[in-house]
Amino acid sequence: MELEKTSKPDLKNWEKNLLQRFSQYKESGLKLDLTRGKPGTEQLDLANQMEGLLKGKMISLNGTDLRNYGGQDGIPEARKLGAEILGLSESEVICQDNSSLTLMYLYMLHAYYHGSQGPDTAWNSQGEVKFLAPVPGYDRHFAICEELGISMINVNMLDDGPDMDAVENLVRNDPMIKGMWCVPKYSNPTGCIYSEQVVDRIAALGKISGPHFRVIWDNAYGVHDLFDNPKELANVMDYCRRHGTEDNLILTASTSKITCAGAGISFLGASEKNLQHFRKRLEVMSIGPNKLNQQRHVLFLKNIEGVRAHMSRHAKILRPKFAMVQKHLEEGLGDKGMGSWHNPEGGYFVSFDSIPGLATEIIRLAGEAGVKLTPAGATYPYGKDPDDKNIRLAPTFPSVEDLDQAMQVFVTCVQLASVQSRL
Amino acid sequence: MELEKTSKPDLKNWEKNLLQRFSQYKESGLKLDLTRGKPGTEQLDLANQMEGLLKGKMISLNGTDLRNYGGQDGIPEARKLGAEILGLSESEVICQDNSSLTLMYLYMLHAYYHGSQGPDTAWNSQGEVKFLAPVPGYDRHFAICEELGISMINVNMLDDGPDMDAVENLVRNDPMIKGMWCVPKYSNPTGCIYSEQVVDRIAALGKISGPHFRVIWDNAYGVHDLFDNPKELANVMDYCRRHGTEDNLILTASTSKITCAGAGISFLGASEKNLQHFRKRLEVMSIGPNKLNQQRHVLFLKNIEGVRAHMSRHAKILRPKFAMVQKHLEEGLGDKGMGSWHNPEGGYFVSFDSIPGLATEIIRLAGEAGVKLTPAGATYPYGKDPDDKNIRLAPTFPSVEDLDQAMQVFVTCVQLASVQSRL
Repeated sequence: MELEKTSKPDLKNWEKNLLQRFSQYKESGLKLDLTRGKPGTEQLDLANQMEGLLKGKMISLNGTDLRNYGGQDGIPEARKLGAEILGLSESEVICQDNSSLTLMYLYMLHAYYHGSQGPDTAWNSQGEVKFLAPVPGYDRHFAICEELGISMINVNMLDDGPDMDAVENLVRNDPMIKGMWCVPKYSNPTGCIYSEQVVDRIAALGKISGPHFRVIWDNAYGVHDLFDNPKELANVMDYCRRHGTEDNLILTASTSKITCAGAGISFLGASEKNLQHFRKRLEVMSIGPNKLNQQRHVLFLKNIEGVRAHMSRHAKILRPKFAMVQKHLEEGLGDKGMGSWHNPEGGYFVSFDSIPGLATEIIRLAGEAGVKLTPAGATYPYGKDPDDKNIRLAPTFPSVEDLDQAMQVFVTCVQLASVQSRL
Repeated sequence: MELEKTSKPDLKNWEKNLLQRFSQYKESGLKLDLTRGKPGTEQLDLANQMEGLLKGKMISLNGTDLRNYGGQDGIPEARKLGAEILGLSESEVICQDNSSLTLMYLYMLHAYYHGSQGPDTAWNSQGEVKFLAPVPGYDRHFAICEELGISMINVNMLDDGPDMDAVENLVRNDPMIKGMWCVPKYSNPTGCIYSEQVVDRIAALGKISGPHFRVIWDNAYGVHDLFDNPKELANVMDYCRRHGTEDNLILTASTSKITCAGAGISFLGASEKNLQHFRKRLEVMSIGPNKLNQQRHVLFLKNIEGVRAHMSRHAKILRPKFAMVQKHLEEGLGDKGMGSWHNPEGGYFVSFDSIPGLATEIIRLAGEAGVKLTPAGATYPYGKDPDDKNIRLAPTFPSVEDLDQAMQVFVTCVQLASVQSRL
């Protein structure tokens, strides 16, 4: 039954049925949570064998005692692994502790206050700094900008990446736009993969904006495919090399959602010139990362093939969860004109857009019925979704059974809010 | 033979003998290093059993899955351990990853740019910020100030801690002095322990300076005693509570020189009010520390008694090394008027003061003879020792045999530079 074509009396009836179902959920005392983009227990179990791997292997092949101080860049073996994940050469990658969020934060902080390539290049000495935020996007990126007082400009996320016409136009007309957030593969939360054309255009932005512009390429889900033979993301550094914009690019990744969340290792990739400057900043705050944890990861994952084999075990656990979300969305909302959603082939989220103006109400209703959803607006800078429509669903942590229940509640709440909005 | 009382001809002869010995060292192709304040291999071996301890123990007693995200403050068990080490209550301590240097850096950074208790309290909004630097001191403290553009004012380190008459006088007359570095036990490099009176006077500084002043109490060597029944350091937070200056104090410690250097866990202690503000800053850059490494440490060290038992095993390894340094200093320089030195009862360093003006030359000579020493001036802000006299010796990493050789060379170089300075 399509919402738009339903008569008032039929809508009334529909509402009555929905309210009945809704009270049943409320009374059943559910306590479910779709907010957390974190791995489930089964996924974490996949890496339990890491513990103990280091026995007798705390001296690296080149003779470095991994238990002692030193090695600001991380151990060569871990840098190599990061380079394979990010599509760079080893000299373009440093490996640090958990997490890539910390590395992005530190990079932004230093670019802002201390300069990405020396004090003369500090963003905050040039005026009011702005950053492009493809929306919906990742709240923790936005929080970094808020912390530093960098204002954000929304750019719409399309199916093949950010709206590049809008991006180029903005960058061309405002030299105080100093960069842009990107989650290029299985974008958080829409799950899209940036097309080759978009990657090329992003790589070319440095030619428009100049040397202080930084694309923060947060490749958090680069190996987090749900299916075999996944779509490939174009290698952005290759495009930058063609455009001569290598210095405009900062890449990050981590093993937080490969091995253990919070106990992984992180990678920052950049031109050697950028790394040389960033390294000097890192040296002030640290004598070097935890090399033992890096070695543990290298022994466990070995190389990119090892990573892919490991991720296929994750995928096996995650496929039924993502399928459960889609099943309920299609069955409950497929022909009703009550919103749209993505069906991602990887990553950690499903992005749902309600009828404009209803996201807050849907989330409130779901909460009342015992299903916690990410707060409305969380996927937008300053927590403000101008259309109040985007809801980020995180299906990785709950069990398939819990998801089955939670999604029934969710669909009911979407239907209820949608029907009520027409009455 | 005392230098001052030696005649010119005797000095000439002395020089000749010393030059002969010096060339022998040069020719023997030594390659020794007394610069590195890092644990020796035997010390690191003491913690090898940590690896593997987590098997089957990755869920904490309160049910937290330590492999997953979350827990910004660190796990309760690790906070408790840190509280015991720092002499605080658990609610006054957070536990983070390696290292305490990083925590000090972040605290200083946020106090400077973002405010220790909200944006209104940011140091850099108040004018040109200054910090007190007891000298000789720790170069990495000074590097943090340099990075942030905080100017440093030298204060002499006496046998019972910083010269508090000078400190109080400076703080009383300059409101832009916003804090002071302290290594209160086995001070780096002099090895002194702050007396109870000094601790009391430091705790009272907040009453002179006001609410934005911060004592950075880097208790890096709090449990690093060489001998049984060591002198106790007074509990500075207790004194702060008496003076009502709890908010003026930031304490740090880590296990870097207890378990593994670079793969340890770190602690920051502060009033709950200070922690509440600092935590908000940390939340922007991290979803939480590596809880697995914290659990590993708790399982291995257990509690403060476990730490002390472990440190006594370190002491057994280190005593002969420190004794070897003292032996050569006493035998070679004991009655010669060529400098003075400390005989610390813990920590990682021996501080030597040459005749003023000779440190650079002694270090140069030692380098020529194959013994690397910490660069002259390293223990002073901006690398400038106004008297060019302090040399920091680090005896923990080399073997006793290497120390025996290196100290022979060192003593010869001190004698040679001293004799030549009188010719």
